[in-house]
Amino acid sequence: MAIIGASATPNKVGYILVRNMLKSGYQGKIYPINPQGGQILGLKAYTSVKEIQDNVDLAVVAIPAKLIPPVVEECGEKGVKSMIIISAGFKETGKEGAELELQVAAIAKKYGLRIQGPNCLGAINTWAPIDLSFAAALPKKGGIGFISQSGALGTAILDWILKKDIGFHSFISLGNKADLDEVDFIEAMAEDPDVKVILLYLESIERGSKFIEIASQVTKCKPIIVVKGGTSSAGAKAAGSHTGALVGSFLAYQKAFEKSGVILADTMEDLFNYAIAFMEQPLPKDEGIAIVTNAGGPGILATDLVERLGVKMAEVKGETKEKLKKGLPAAASTGNPIDVLGDAGADRYAFAIEEALWDQGINLVVVLLTPQAMTDSMATADAMVRLNEKHPEKTMLAVFMGGDQVEGASKYLKDKGIPCFDFPEKAIKTADAIYRYSRYLKTPEQKPTNYTVDKKKVDSIFKAVRADCRKVLLPTEAAEVARAYGIAAPPSKLAEKPEDAVEYAMEMGYPVVMKIVSPDILHKTDIGGVVLNITSPEEVHQAFADIMAKSRKAHPEAKIYGVSVDKMVPRGREMIVGMSRDPQFGPMVMFGLGGIYVNFLKDVAFRIAPLNARDAEGIVKETKSYTLLKGIRGEPPADIAALEEMILRISQFVTTYPEVAEMDINPILVYGEGGGCQALDVKIALRS
Amino acid sequence: MAIIGASATPNKVGYILVRNMLKSGYQGKIYPINPQGGQILGLKAYTSVKEIQDNVDLAVVAIPAKLIPPVVEECGEKGVKSMIIISAGFKETGKEGAELELQVAAIAKKYGLRIQGPNCLGAINTWAPIDLSFAAALPKKGGIGFISQSGALGTAILDWILKKDIGFHSFISLGNKADLDEVDFIEAMAEDPDVKVILLYLESIERGSKFIEIASQVTKCKPIIVVKGGTSSAGAKAAGSHTGALVGSFLAYQKAFEKSGVILADTMEDLFNYAIAFMEQPLPKDEGIAIVTNAGGPGILATDLVERLGVKMAEVKGETKEKLKKGLPAAASTGNPIDVLGDAGADRYAFAIEEALWDQGINLVVVLLTPQAMTDSMATADAMVRLNEKHPEKTMLAVFMGGDQVEGASKYLKDKGIPCFDFPEKAIKTADAIYRYSRYLKTPEQKPTNYTVDKKKVDSIFKAVRADCRKVLLPTEAAEVARAYGIAAPPSKLAEKPEDAVEYAMEMGYPVVMKIVSPDILHKTDIGGVVLNITSPEEVHQAFADIMAKSRKAHPEAKIYGVSVDKMVPRGREMIVGMSRDPQFGPMVMFGLGGIYVNFLKDVAFRIAPLNARDAEGIVKETKSYTLLKGIRGEPPADIAALEEMILRISQFVTTYPEVAEMDINPILVYGEGGGCQALDVKIALRS
Repeated sequence: MAIIGASATPNKVGYILVRNMLKSGYQGKIYPINPQGGQILGLKAYTSVKEIQDNVDLAVVAIPAKLIPPVVEECGEKGVKSMIIISAGFKETGKEGAELELQVAAIAKKYGLRIQGPNCLGAINTWAPIDLSFAAALPKKGGIGFISQSGALGTAILDWILKKDIGFHSFISLGNKADLDEVDFIEAMAEDPDVKVILLYLESIERGSKFIEIASQVTKCKPIIVVKGGTSSAGAKAAGSHTGALVGSFLAYQKAFEKSGVILADTMEDLFNYAIAFMEQPLPKDEGIAIVTNAGGPGILATDLVERLGVKMAEVKGETKEKLKKGLPAAASTGNPIDVLGDAGADRYAFAIEEALWDQGINLVVVLLTPQAMTDSMATADAMVRLNEKHPEKTMLAVFMGGDQVEGASKYLKDKGIPCFDFPEKAIKTADAIYRYSRYLKTPEQKPTNYTVDKKKVDSIFKAVRADCRKVLLPTEAAEVARAYGIAAPPSKLAEKPEDAVEYAMEMGYPVVMKIVSPDILHKTDIGGVVLNITSPEEVHQAFADIMAKSRKAHPEAKIYGVSVDKMVPRGREMIVGMSRDPQFGPMVMFGLGGIYVNFLKDVAFRIAPLNARDAEGIVKETKSYTLLKGIRGEPPADIAALEEMILRISQFVTTYPEVAEMDINPILVYGEGGGCQALDVKIALRS
Repeated sequence: MAIIGASATPNKVGYILVRNMLKSGYQGKIYPINPQGGQILGLKAYTSVKEIQDNVDLAVVAIPAKLIPPVVEECGEKGVKSMIIISAGFKETGKEGAELELQVAAIAKKYGLRIQGPNCLGAINTWAPIDLSFAAALPKKGGIGFISQSGALGTAILDWILKKDIGFHSFISLGNKADLDEVDFIEAMAEDPDVKVILLYLESIERGSKFIEIASQVTKCKPIIVVKGGTSSAGAKAAGSHTGALVGSFLAYQKAFEKSGVILADTMEDLFNYAIAFMEQPLPKDEGIAIVTNAGGPGILATDLVERLGVKMAEVKGETKEKLKKGLPAAASTGNPIDVLGDAGADRYAFAIEEALWDQGINLVVVLLTPQAMTDSMATADAMVRLNEKHPEKTMLAVFMGGDQVEGASKYLKDKGIPCFDFPEKAIKTADAIYRYSRYLKTPEQKPTNYTVDKKKVDSIFKAVRADCRKVLLPTEAAEVARAYGIAAPPSKLAEKPEDAVEYAMEMGYPVVMKIVSPDILHKTDIGGVVLNITSPEEVHQAFADIMAKSRKAHPEAKIYGVSVDKMVPRGREMIVGMSRDPQFGPMVMFGLGGIYVNFLKDVAFRIAPLNARDAEGIVKETKSYTLLKGIRGEPPADIAALEEMILRISQFVTTYPEVAEMDINPILVYGEGGGCQALDVKIALRS
């Protein structure tokens, strides 16, 4: 490997790189490159990669940005396979830097040369070993692969894990991602059997769909855990539709992570707590946490959090309770938490833990310990290690609270593979992460549904809309598109003359609703552009005249297409289904309470399309409105099956047609079981 | 002071107590009491307190529970002022123990002797100094007073703070609270000028109103911070009213803490982080956090949390930005976070921090540091300490991420009074706690409103209800009570005969609504017990007959009082106002979206009565329905002032009448500005 910009001056980046590589124990040859040649840290320095006789797989670059393009060219010619560009001065500095970055990427592409960075803080691999970072020392060999979009954060973490004695496989500083990005490194780490868990600090994902595709495959084999920076940025899109207004950008990331089984961590500390637990402990076979404690307070705090996070406390079996009662003092609690009392020695702890481990309903045990007069933290830890080995199928976490009195035992537990925390909430958050992943793995795979639909119809409508130089479909057109996709919408026709309106009304049957059709008139009701409950040809005539007159008066400039005649349908529960396109992850389907309530109650849920049947069920159940659909105050339940099918058809539609920028149906009326749904007001906008 | 149950056997509780008191440096005399007399750790042991010649202020007791009553009697006779009963075997063990506890409390009361415990883990005061705990050593002298309802948790924390080198004033283990409880100790700590901040771990508060009263006074002078255990317990009351069903018990605690300025912490770690910040740093004069960082990632994570917690990032002034631009490299960010770049040395940090401190819009500075090649963590810390002294009016927090490379600097900052954290979220949560307290202190005091009302009317109705052996008021009675409190309710009269109904309808004017009045019929509409929109005497006659017949048929056993005739009022925005009584904190007033939505959307807010005008404003603004009240989709705003007044009148009513167990008005119709409200369906239940 070559270090371009190697330097003999201590503390220079090019010096630290050579020094760290020498210290790392790297087995291959190291070629420092410096235009002046000479010797660097005892190695012969070359003036250019071309001067090197051997093949060079990897080159790391730490020279001023402007000098980099010719160097990349040289590396390409030399047949270098990958480069790590440490140097800053690219996209992050503005337009000129961005152009330079594109230039570098283009040269690399020409040679099939892959680039990490630029503007990054290097890479570490403890197994190779390679140390192209600025860390004080190489971390302990381990199974954690860590990919960071913030180099400095990575550096801080490297220093922190050294102190915490956490084992590491590799560290990748992504930098500007001119070429290789998180998806590439996730793929590489997925293939490496020595990486047991992949951690990421991410601020952005550019290839959203690819991320979901790859992450979904990888999480089947090893956990991916992410801390997302920039959750507060971006904000709601200004677009007019409800869906657009409600989709925050972080929400899209959350949904993408959920979809692909990626575990989201709140903080960097959680990220590593989770990683260690995943590496050291088995995934629990089933739900059911038991807490064994010698102190009420911490047990209560742990239980509170178990309930708040929605993890499940185990129901201790009657049989286990009996055994516990026999072996524990009378004042002990054999429920859950199992309270072994303040005067519990190691034997009593061991007894209670073992009984818990034998209980088939208990799959994850959290052992809480506070140092009291009779507490023997080291002997208790020892017993735990023994029991953990004896019951390798059950997950064990520890919380040893205190200072010096628990320090040795806590370290011993960690060394022996039992994650040990200083406060209960950290263990419970970790247990929650374990269960989130474990539940994801257990969920059987399901393909998105595929309904037979009338694509030709949709194509012809879109063609007509484009021919008319519009982006927004007329309500009648949008309803027709919906029907082409098997989504029931009341008969709706566009009448240009009163006679047509009468004919249409007759065809569909009274009562009907009539509305002005004009892309330029937004608040139709306010200007008298809507007439409800029309029951005779005379009323149709009258309504047509009224609507046209009022609309022309209120909006003299408006382009008016005519008046729509819609069959009036009975009232039902008013829901909304919508879709807006996230710039990273594509179509986000929204479902929730519709009508006027959507804007202020915001009882809505989201999924990234395409949805499968389970997603459709989930998106409905996630809302509070689900209660309304099940029937409140003695109402019969709504036709939830029909609603879910409709959501799936919309998912299929927006997946098939990337040109659909936004869509929403508000309200969609949901009737009683067997009664289906009716899409009352369909809005579709195409991309410009 | 006397140690009753003192022992010469090492590791016995009575031995540790004597040993720790001797080690503590206590200035007064220590009298070990042991029936065998002799010598204990070099001190003469007395066989009873009566044997002691001097006065004894305090006695600590560690003898079997059953032996305690006569000992308390002796202490009372001897004139002992207070006792700490360590011994377990009381209320926590069941009925017999509870009786023993009552007996002990009664004896103590007879002598005016105050008791801490029983079943507690003692007390510490580093200033006295007194060590009646089981801690390994006395903590460093400091300003934290810590009251714990879990003794073991206290012990763990004592061990932890020793290791963390955190200064402590006192530790109190509450135990069973047979006599002295958290309120007493808060009062004592409030009076002690050496206590700077009061921390509590609480599972329950028995004297809820007293707690609010005392805490409200104390928090004006020093912060009280609480971790609440048992937030998941209790659950919703089974009572029928919506209010009862929605008041979770932890909610009452939250509202009580908010009302009294007590700061709630999520975890024990937060509790101490907040405490240290309160002791070491000034409260910020105003909103406005600035973050100074040498790394993008941690800055972003900090900013995300600032926004999520609703704290305010400062807007860096143009002037400050100009100065920063001049003094920092071109690539630095002069916004907020202020990014001094990865290669920032101490000077650059110092420059940026100082400019931030000069900015009047910045009142709290969080300095983030990650160890990079050019970072000098110690020199940066030194500069921060200097700047903190120079700008004592501004709050400073630090986050030094990493391991060995930041450890020394981090310790130095802590020693010099700048709280330093290892991860950004801890600093931001602390800043949030500081701002929560600071905002509370700034809110001017406001008395609950006091309207002139017709109490006599209410008294007479309640008397009549009781005379009728009922607890639930008839709808007509409840409406009358509401009117007596100045709450508008549509005219409503109870008719026993059809003729009366006709007369009442005439009086109030058509249209009217008629409903069956019977405490035994719950779902009136379902059985045909309600007729709406009645517009003539004939219809009144018909409705009366129908309602009576259908009700008798459906509920032959029901006691029927007659049929109510209510004036129909126009539709308005449907809200709910209710009250249920929390067992600890008394009347909880609820406000939210009414009608059928209350149960499934649960858009409701709560306050503990009595409410002042600000509370009434707050409870309305806290709901999403506030948006609805302000007017959505071009609707005119609702009469929010009238609504708030109505909430205040209800607060006054439920405060004046403790016999009101539950009350709710659903819906209360809110009309447009100036239109007032109408309480459509008032339910009042009295206590049994």
